[in-house]
Amino acid sequence: MTHKLLLLTRENDKYRELLSNCNLPHLTILGDSPDSIMQSDIWFAEPNLAAPLLNHAKNLRWLQSTFAGVDKLISTRQRRDYILTNIRGIFGPLMSEYLFGYLLAHQRQHQKYQQQQQQKQWLPGSYQTLQGQHLLLLGTGSIAQHIASTAKHFGMTVTGINRQGMATASFDKVGTLAQLNDFLPKADVIASVLPHTEETHNILNQHTLTLLKPKAMLFNLGRGNVLDLDDLDSHLSQHPEQQAILDVFNQEPLPAEHPIWARSNAIITPHIAAPSFPEQVVEVFCHNYALWLKQQPLINLVDFTKGY
Amino acid sequence: MTHKLLLLTRENDKYRELLSNCNLPHLTILGDSPDSIMQSDIWFAEPNLAAPLLNHAKNLRWLQSTFAGVDKLISTRQRRDYILTNIRGIFGPLMSEYLFGYLLAHQRQHQKYQQQQQQKQWLPGSYQTLQGQHLLLLGTGSIAQHIASTAKHFGMTVTGINRQGMATASFDKVGTLAQLNDFLPKADVIASVLPHTEETHNILNQHTLTLLKPKAMLFNLGRGNVLDLDDLDSHLSQHPEQQAILDVFNQEPLPAEHPIWARSNAIITPHIAAPSFPEQVVEVFCHNYALWLKQQPLINLVDFTKGY
Repeated sequence: MTHKLLLLTRENDKYRELLSNCNLPHLTILGDSPDSIMQSDIWFAEPNLAAPLLNHAKNLRWLQSTFAGVDKLISTRQRRDYILTNIRGIFGPLMSEYLFGYLLAHQRQHQKYQQQQQQKQWLPGSYQTLQGQHLLLLGTGSIAQHIASTAKHFGMTVTGINRQGMATASFDKVGTLAQLNDFLPKADVIASVLPHTEETHNILNQHTLTLLKPKAMLFNLGRGNVLDLDDLDSHLSQHPEQQAILDVFNQEPLPAEHPIWARSNAIITPHIAAPSFPEQVVEVFCHNYALWLKQQPLINLVDFTKGY
Repeated sequence: MTHKLLLLTRENDKYRELLSNCNLPHLTILGDSPDSIMQSDIWFAEPNLAAPLLNHAKNLRWLQSTFAGVDKLISTRQRRDYILTNIRGIFGPLMSEYLFGYLLAHQRQHQKYQQQQQQKQWLPGSYQTLQGQHLLLLGTGSIAQHIASTAKHFGMTVTGINRQGMATASFDKVGTLAQLNDFLPKADVIASVLPHTEETHNILNQHTLTLLKPKAMLFNLGRGNVLDLDDLDSHLSQHPEQQAILDVFNQEPLPAEHPIWARSNAIITPHIAAPSFPEQVVEVFCHNYALWLKQQPLINLVDFTKGY
């Protein structure tokens, strides 16, 4: 039997080239014409591009997402009669680079020393080391586990929050979302890598933000809707010593008129913390395709009811 | 027998307080009067403050340096008839914070995204990950070993250089100073944590600097005289894509008229990569004092002939 693959990304040429280096027997790669959408049984797709076309996908049996975030595909109105796999695991190291890059830049005062250099001033000052500081991670999946292991390497104490409060490697302690209000006041650094679900929607809001330490740093790296951005903006205006580093937003690109762009204690980056490198996405797909041919379970399966 | 301790630091009050929390039987802590200098058998001192007074130290038997760098005390003209201990080990984590803070800030393009934020621009771009990059460490002592372990955590390949080319934990490969010219062209990141000795003097100069990769990053965190600063300055002016991050200098403070202050691809910090935290210095001293009383070998002994 021959399989038909629909390529549905903003980098189809790049992916076509990479896929040609893979051993993919019995597979024909199609473009994204209406015919291809109807005929293909396998999709290799960005969730936001695939979502509006799902209802025309008569033959769809398996969709390999090129992203980690698949919320566009699992809203309750969408069909769920196919196998959905996503990208995982490869993001941990990139997220750690992003998080610890900004964390160290802030704590080791890059900006202050840059200004001093501009004025040719030699003024050594004191600072905090990460050693002994407390990191609270919202999420304990593969990305959070990698961040936790980096934090432990830097001598931090790490608490994680997940659905069941189940213990996980690299964390000193793990609690549930219901304990968020107990954990927030103890954390020097808070980082959310949570997916967007009903339970995580806007859990960081004007009420919970008041629980932060006076000099807390808050990262949002998972999904924009875990955080109420307007609440955060007004909170930051009243807490100039706190710092927010945001890579994901409810609406992307973040609209130019949003006041948080200009907030001096907010850092805004355009969803770059952990992009999927095409080489790694192709590696996952090729591995999964081999399993598919052998009718074995695929890796990185998404559970539609959990949402991740 | 009662011991007399000379306190010779810029933070004597702070140290006096911290030492009072330690169990130090038979020890009287003196100020830094000429009498005290003559009478004290134990010195707790900054090397630069102690060096000019050594010849008046009639009773000196042991000097605990509050710094790692003791070159001021071991020049050939100085006496060597006492036991010298310094501070080690505690610097590794701080050096890693400094190095990886600046490394990640550069590679993950903090400056570019800061400028984009100021203009409210959402322009995700591509970047390099540390994974797979090559770090060359000049030095393989306790500081270098800690930096190497951080680099391994971030997925880098690590080569070290030491006197004998002796293998050391956390390094993928270790060579000798004589192999420097073979190693430099392969490194994406070079960091020197070498002490200043005859063999390390100006080993980074106009000849060796030409061996760097086009986008190499060079850190000097050990001693200023390992690097010819004027050579580096003119080299950087001709290689705008290379980047130097300098925390130590031949002359400190770095004179305001030095052109490297204004070099856009140089970052200058005022010897802050790894300060001795007084709490940790006191911990070393109190441990050593207990050994001293028991006439056991002290930790962190400096070998006058090696120079570290």
